[in-house]
Amino acid sequence: MQDLPALRQLFEDYLKENLVHKEPAALYEPFHYIMGMGGKRMRPVMALLACQLFQEDVRAALPSAFSVEVFHNFSLVHDDIMDEADIRRGQATVHTKYGLNSGILSGDVMLIYAYDELRKTPRPEAINDLVNTLSQVAIRVCEGQQYDIDFETRQDVSLDDYLLMIEMKTAALLAGSLKMGAISAGASADDQMHLSEFGRLTGIAFQIQDDYLDTFGDPQKVGKRPGGDIIQNKKTCLYIKALELASPEQREQILSWFSGPSDDPEEKVRAVTQLFVDLGIPEYLKQLRNDYQQRAYEHLRQVSVAEERKALLFGLAESLLVREL
Amino acid sequence: MQDLPALRQLFEDYLKENLVHKEPAALYEPFHYIMGMGGKRMRPVMALLACQLFQEDVRAALPSAFSVEVFHNFSLVHDDIMDEADIRRGQATVHTKYGLNSGILSGDVMLIYAYDELRKTPRPEAINDLVNTLSQVAIRVCEGQQYDIDFETRQDVSLDDYLLMIEMKTAALLAGSLKMGAISAGASADDQMHLSEFGRLTGIAFQIQDDYLDTFGDPQKVGKRPGGDIIQNKKTCLYIKALELASPEQREQILSWFSGPSDDPEEKVRAVTQLFVDLGIPEYLKQLRNDYQQRAYEHLRQVSVAEERKALLFGLAESLLVREL
Repeated sequence: MQDLPALRQLFEDYLKENLVHKEPAALYEPFHYIMGMGGKRMRPVMALLACQLFQEDVRAALPSAFSVEVFHNFSLVHDDIMDEADIRRGQATVHTKYGLNSGILSGDVMLIYAYDELRKTPRPEAINDLVNTLSQVAIRVCEGQQYDIDFETRQDVSLDDYLLMIEMKTAALLAGSLKMGAISAGASADDQMHLSEFGRLTGIAFQIQDDYLDTFGDPQKVGKRPGGDIIQNKKTCLYIKALELASPEQREQILSWFSGPSDDPEEKVRAVTQLFVDLGIPEYLKQLRNDYQQRAYEHLRQVSVAEERKALLFGLAESLLVREL
Repeated sequence: MQDLPALRQLFEDYLKENLVHKEPAALYEPFHYIMGMGGKRMRPVMALLACQLFQEDVRAALPSAFSVEVFHNFSLVHDDIMDEADIRRGQATVHTKYGLNSGILSGDVMLIYAYDELRKTPRPEAINDLVNTLSQVAIRVCEGQQYDIDFETRQDVSLDDYLLMIEMKTAALLAGSLKMGAISAGASADDQMHLSEFGRLTGIAFQIQDDYLDTFGDPQKVGKRPGGDIIQNKKTCLYIKALELASPEQREQILSWFSGPSDDPEEKVRAVTQLFVDLGIPEYLKQLRNDYQQRAYEHLRQVSVAEERKALLFGLAESLLVREL
């Protein structure tokens, strides 16, 4: 079995060999640029780990790993345009560096290459399944992005709505990465399903935790001052759940704090955090995250291979989901 | 055998039944909007015609027909953003009506559905081939669009460069539509190739003719006054070939006329048209179009089915490529 750094290196080598280098340069340069920005390569590593549950040779899953990473980066390129984001991973976003048209068109060609790569899968009988899985995931990611845009201007978003949006926009691709790795190894439909559910539930747990830690995390561990989301008026699951539970008076206070920029950000963070505490939000979200985490682990336990083969996937989940919130 | 109106109706019915109607509305409404604009449905009809060469029941090619039409409309949505086009087929373009973000995101989901549709193909053993053909076409269309953008700011574009751009941006999808129709019917690799070449060469011939007719067409038949491209300084194949053949003095005159808007458009059209005539451009391009047309027909003749089965495809080409330029 290969450990995470070895799998990551295997993927990086494959990526380097398989990225297309051809004309027109203006189309392919932005593609190479964003793929070269790095990142944790979480999705391709998950595809390889899923494959490794079932067979020693993980190379069968390299096309799937490539596909999900290229798809993920396509979605970043187009989302950054929609979000008018200038910076990603400390560097200029694609459309900022190359212009709007290059952002759109190079994103398009990346989406096409995410599909095209799957024909390299060494098990030709798996290709239909892989293409179909990618499509179902890709449709959910687009739908999730649209819900995210819609929610910005809606005041009636429930926590269930929000969790569904998160599931579509981010958890679906983690689920799909694991499923495609499992398909590449010829795993059973049951095992594919359990791995997919493990990815989906882990993804949702992670996003809940991400929202939680931004306000209630230990600054020493999180590496930044708490309250960034509050200062930016972000409609996180804390905000949404608080509105669901608030008295009319508390509701008015929350809406007032989130109605615009504050003259005194520190006071705003202190006041909103106190409102969240009064409403029991931290306990509620800790419990919610833990529930998703446990449900995720239960699915991984159900995968029909020896427990010791699952250690790396449990380890990866543990590294995403901190033990104590 | 079904004639063109019957095939078009078959496609319209299938389209109506198979367009997804689901949430979020903001994602799917622009998709329905552009698909509902109509148009000649040239590409899906070509897919059905190719299938009908080999078997009476053309329904096997309906998923391919849907796929190429959705792909074509995806490319229109994103191209209209890049070209800053407000109007298409007399109606507001998608991004003008729904905004930039909806244009990008609904275009993305259309590209995904172009792939997703192919799993409905009744011959599962054909799906890999269809997906692969769509990807190869889609990559060429993106590359062609990038070359088109690049050429706007380049002064050294040769006619060969221009024809290659046209081939990628428009002819490749006609070729792919015919090829996918043939694959859907289980046609041989040779027949697929001949149909694909027929589509590719017909597409190039059509674009050359399109450029030619804008300046030299009979206004009665073309339905508009000649010289629109000249007034807009469009770098058509007339302009490019003229620059290739021009004396230094003529070159200077052409570049001068194309350097900006003219105070006297009629005089500009008259002068540039005369320059084109002096350089023998109309004869050259007539001959070039005829050569492509003949090569296209030669490939259709090579398809290994009875000649009478090909009448509708020859007829379609004849309707695109007028007999006398």
